[in-house]
Amino acid sequence: MKPSLPRTATTFSPPVMEARRWLDGVDFTDRPLINVSQAAPVDPPPLPMRQAMAQIIVDNEEAHLYGPVLGLPELRTEVAKQWSVSYEGQISADNVAITSGCNQAFTAAISTLCAEGDEVILPVPYYFNHRMWLDMAGVKTVPLAANTGLVPTADDAAALITEKTRAIVLVTPNNPGGVEYPAETVKAFADLARTNNIALIIDETYRDFDNRTGAPHDLFQDPNWGDTLIQLYSFSKAYRLTGHRVGALVASPSRLVEVEKFLDTVTICPNQLGQHAALWGMQNLTDWLAGERLEILDRRAAIQEQFPRLAELGWELEGCGAYFAYLKHPFDMRSDDLARDLVEKAGVLSLPGTMFMPEGQGTQHLRVAFANVDRAGITTLFDRLLAYHS
Amino acid sequence: MKPSLPRTATTFSPPVMEARRWLDGVDFTDRPLINVSQAAPVDPPPLPMRQAMAQIIVDNEEAHLYGPVLGLPELRTEVAKQWSVSYEGQISADNVAITSGCNQAFTAAISTLCAEGDEVILPVPYYFNHRMWLDMAGVKTVPLAANTGLVPTADDAAALITEKTRAIVLVTPNNPGGVEYPAETVKAFADLARTNNIALIIDETYRDFDNRTGAPHDLFQDPNWGDTLIQLYSFSKAYRLTGHRVGALVASPSRLVEVEKFLDTVTICPNQLGQHAALWGMQNLTDWLAGERLEILDRRAAIQEQFPRLAELGWELEGCGAYFAYLKHPFDMRSDDLARDLVEKAGVLSLPGTMFMPEGQGTQHLRVAFANVDRAGITTLFDRLLAYHS
Repeated sequence: MKPSLPRTATTFSPPVMEARRWLDGVDFTDRPLINVSQAAPVDPPPLPMRQAMAQIIVDNEEAHLYGPVLGLPELRTEVAKQWSVSYEGQISADNVAITSGCNQAFTAAISTLCAEGDEVILPVPYYFNHRMWLDMAGVKTVPLAANTGLVPTADDAAALITEKTRAIVLVTPNNPGGVEYPAETVKAFADLARTNNIALIIDETYRDFDNRTGAPHDLFQDPNWGDTLIQLYSFSKAYRLTGHRVGALVASPSRLVEVEKFLDTVTICPNQLGQHAALWGMQNLTDWLAGERLEILDRRAAIQEQFPRLAELGWELEGCGAYFAYLKHPFDMRSDDLARDLVEKAGVLSLPGTMFMPEGQGTQHLRVAFANVDRAGITTLFDRLLAYHS
Repeated sequence: MKPSLPRTATTFSPPVMEARRWLDGVDFTDRPLINVSQAAPVDPPPLPMRQAMAQIIVDNEEAHLYGPVLGLPELRTEVAKQWSVSYEGQISADNVAITSGCNQAFTAAISTLCAEGDEVILPVPYYFNHRMWLDMAGVKTVPLAANTGLVPTADDAAALITEKTRAIVLVTPNNPGGVEYPAETVKAFADLARTNNIALIIDETYRDFDNRTGAPHDLFQDPNWGDTLIQLYSFSKAYRLTGHRVGALVASPSRLVEVEKFLDTVTICPNQLGQHAALWGMQNLTDWLAGERLEILDRRAAIQEQFPRLAELGWELEGCGAYFAYLKHPFDMRSDDLARDLVEKAGVLSLPGTMFMPEGQGTQHLRVAFANVDRAGITTLFDRLLAYHS
């Protein structure tokens, strides 16, 4: 009998690294690259935060040593405090685990839920690292097609549940689609999950850039939320801490006992400085973050204002929000070929829909991560896409 | 049919966190705790290193952003350069991945090798996080009993190889045993692995505190080392960077393509500051580290000098080196009960052998991680263990 494939051989290569390799050998001297491939700030955290971090490095000896597996107690407490207010629910420090980035939070959550051969329902287009982890964990990804406007429905999901289903995963605001799921949609999924005794994993990495004010859903208002809900969060986008790897997982205390096993084995603890930075950010950068949000929302508006120029040529804007515009292109060409061609002929690096969909799908879409491009850059981006047509 | 257990339910709780809970409610005011439970420095990195890190935090904007999945190119290059000299072999930057600590390096290695139901040979006593990951990865741990002096033999391992075996794991200097495996032992394991077309994973976390000078093995002198060998390393012990999570994995470039999938999915990249710190350490702390090694070797000598006092009472010193002494106790009591009792009655926190062995074994042993205890403290430690007898 032929041996089974090792876990990493069951999945594909990291899309962002692959896309980066498309730049090799292309000359951008006359036309600087517009990089809309990665959903990450390109500026460092504000100077006062960097200064505070430098102080911690020199003065706080404990910040260099192992900390608790589930994270810095002060940060867990601060998350609980701020979440309880913003979601109008009961969240305590015992509900919060700090992770080495939000990807790790997802891998930990799945590890507490699934065995080999289990199933997880993932709306498409999906965030590729979610798919990669499910592959490597031996879990079958059950794709859930979106309804109108890239929003999936709980009714459609209900039809996909089998006795092997362990969770439904929602990302809202969505990566790659950019759409914000309505509160009632999220609630319907939570009800569906509870009825079927499975988990609802809700990844709110882009929460701080939601166009809506107030809580984006009311799941935490249910005092029994912990029996169903696992929420994931990232400090990377809000405070420009991508290089420091800090995320969070919010769940029931009994689930965190299981999460602790996974995190201890994979990284022992989240790095301490990143946690101190996240705490400092939560305590000092509320106004600054509000400004960041307005800037991102303005860029999103710029995309919407510019889009009619492309719509005339057959493009469609299927979703726009958070850091992302999800575009349907009019070319008789696979999106992965198109994305590579755009690097060379338009000086634009975007990711093809094929990276966010099961094999053979997504050929008609591009994800544009616009958060790092200002208004002028967005105009240039559209100029280049228009020029590509001629 | 009953569903299979989720991955985290297939393994035990983190031993270090469990042991820490034994301290709850015990009063140490009159007799300060001697904590020999965790293998970690308790002092921060030297001040010049912390100052260099602080400078990077303020001045190096890139250090706050995502870096390459496989790590900072300069650090990969430095590891390759220093390794090529110290192991007298050919190691290039393409052979080096930087990881979020050495535990993560192990999880990545296993993920490139194993599928559900595969087997890995692990000498006992083992490092518990290795066992935990194998459990969670659906891999069967095949324990390899040690020969005399806690050193396993390739001949014994040969008898355990089946068609499902994917790797043998060696930790040298050993955790928890403290023994340094002779170069010829390591070579015999590499030959066995190559003959059977399986991997040899060699975890050299405690390499910098080896009592021997020169390369501890000659595996890298074989130009084809990459077909068999996966080496793991940690910057945490050498430069006191436990809180920053930086380790390394050295393997063939083709294996690193697979490693990249795993690391991207779990953490995207290692945190950048920790990598800069490790690089600074490698470039500036060679002499300092040599002094650290001598200090640890002196503490090891102190253990050996003190030990006869316990030997008279029936204790045995089975291994002593790196950060660890592995003791056989004379009590008619399980080691996990003894370890808890020692907290209360002797003010000593050590880890029981049960944590390093399959279910039901290890009841006669204790691991003492002595690296943080100076000569005076080691005398006190033995005083207390002696007093416990009366």
